[in-house]
Amino acid sequence: MKKYYTEQWSEDCQFSIAYEEKLHSEASPFQQIDFYKGEEFGTFFTLDGLMMVNEKDEFVYHDMITHPAFATNPNIKKVLIIGGGDGGTAREVLRYKSVEKVVMVEIDELVFRLSQKYLPITAAGVEEDSRMEMIFDDGLAYVQNAPDASFDLILVDSTDPISVGEGLFTTAFYQECHRVLSAEGILINQHESPYFAEYAENMRKAHTKIKKIFDIAKVYQFHMPTYPSGHWLFGFASKKFDPIQNVQAEAWSNFGLHTKYYNTDLHVGAFMLPTFVKEKLAREE
Amino acid sequence: MKKYYTEQWSEDCQFSIAYEEKLHSEASPFQQIDFYKGEEFGTFFTLDGLMMVNEKDEFVYHDMITHPAFATNPNIKKVLIIGGGDGGTAREVLRYKSVEKVVMVEIDELVFRLSQKYLPITAAGVEEDSRMEMIFDDGLAYVQNAPDASFDLILVDSTDPISVGEGLFTTAFYQECHRVLSAEGILINQHESPYFAEYAENMRKAHTKIKKIFDIAKVYQFHMPTYPSGHWLFGFASKKFDPIQNVQAEAWSNFGLHTKYYNTDLHVGAFMLPTFVKEKLAREE
Repeated sequence: MKKYYTEQWSEDCQFSIAYEEKLHSEASPFQQIDFYKGEEFGTFFTLDGLMMVNEKDEFVYHDMITHPAFATNPNIKKVLIIGGGDGGTAREVLRYKSVEKVVMVEIDELVFRLSQKYLPITAAGVEEDSRMEMIFDDGLAYVQNAPDASFDLILVDSTDPISVGEGLFTTAFYQECHRVLSAEGILINQHESPYFAEYAENMRKAHTKIKKIFDIAKVYQFHMPTYPSGHWLFGFASKKFDPIQNVQAEAWSNFGLHTKYYNTDLHVGAFMLPTFVKEKLAREE
Repeated sequence: MKKYYTEQWSEDCQFSIAYEEKLHSEASPFQQIDFYKGEEFGTFFTLDGLMMVNEKDEFVYHDMITHPAFATNPNIKKVLIIGGGDGGTAREVLRYKSVEKVVMVEIDELVFRLSQKYLPITAAGVEEDSRMEMIFDDGLAYVQNAPDASFDLILVDSTDPISVGEGLFTTAFYQECHRVLSAEGILINQHESPYFAEYAENMRKAHTKIKKIFDIAKVYQFHMPTYPSGHWLFGFASKKFDPIQNVQAEAWSNFGLHTKYYNTDLHVGAFMLPTFVKEKLAREE
């Protein structure tokens, strides 16, 4: 008899994944953490009951949060990751030999430690890389204290704008990101989803704030089947580079990385949004 | 207490939608038909237990099956729809005043009659349009008997390749479509999904067959949250037009149609597929 983990995607919609074993269940000072192991989706974990990462499609999310920025500016050297406790975003960033320094600021150390134990697909080797600096602290506080122009890329790999993720969806946070980024700096942020009403409202609010702060502020989409509706977005904000006009397909190809989801054609395609998404993003309130 | 309609998306994955009322349940000679009514997704119906159409996101599917072909060849006059019993595909085609004739061949008349009764959003007005010819018969038999070069566009709006939909995923059917299409003809077909193994195998098989028959055979993707994984595909096959190189954005814009999902930027973007999808499509077996 299979047991199912079920997530309420909206008032009227549920998504369920079968698991064979519950590996770990613990309340950290920040959130409820649950690790499961099943057949089709492998090991997966939830925070406060919401799906974060599973072995079947983590590659989609981690490809899409990381590679579009590097294909737009192949000269990225210093990277700040906010959140990303499973390690998958750092794993992808560290594939670029040209990257000199990665600071990862995750508020909940337990998420990372449990990922090291149960999810080596995302967490293995990350802490051991000599370019990594791991900080277990509040991301907003970190950027408030960081020097001007100290990073070329900030990746905000956050939960939804509730509980611990809330501060990472504020104007104050985006302004600090702008200040901390170099003149060629790029900000990629978890941008929610257009389909279910609550997520769509968070998507709209985030974009409204970011486009007032950054000269270039666009949104790109991807297929993430285990997140609500499967239609998920990242924001691309930058001071100088346009992600479509400035994409450097050949330079990116020269990195020699094989990616299972990302490619530079899809990079451009991902910014081509459905009309209802464009209309929602354009609304100020 | 809400009741849930649940669909098994794969061995380990379930998707559920709440409904308040079951409107109709009947076994036709071809399949089990069930109509439900809920709050968030409105009225929806299933065939043999699989979600076909709901009021919340039918616009995605019907935009994407219809408009890419018309933006590639704005001179389409004669259209054949195979399946499409809910009427939504015909509804979109009939928005083009330049279309002279639409033949819709649906094997199961009951699906259309129940859609007329319960789903006016897709079925209303379709039968009444003087350009429509409705035929309730087998789609494969229809194309076998149709004259050469008698249509500019064939839209295969089918169920999965099981039960009644099976014949619409065969080499024999695709060959007949090729014969029945004009020299500028385009075939759009329901092309399954790359995420869950069974659907992905059907996707690969369909593409392998079609690319042997048509000079141009591409695949494009869209976000359809209520279909398994939310990552869905259509095939674009044609004798003459390439859907990217030949897209006529201005000509399409001149039709003056407002579409909630489709636009001509997204048209191009939709053909930019993830690497794992391209690799799967390229495999012969």
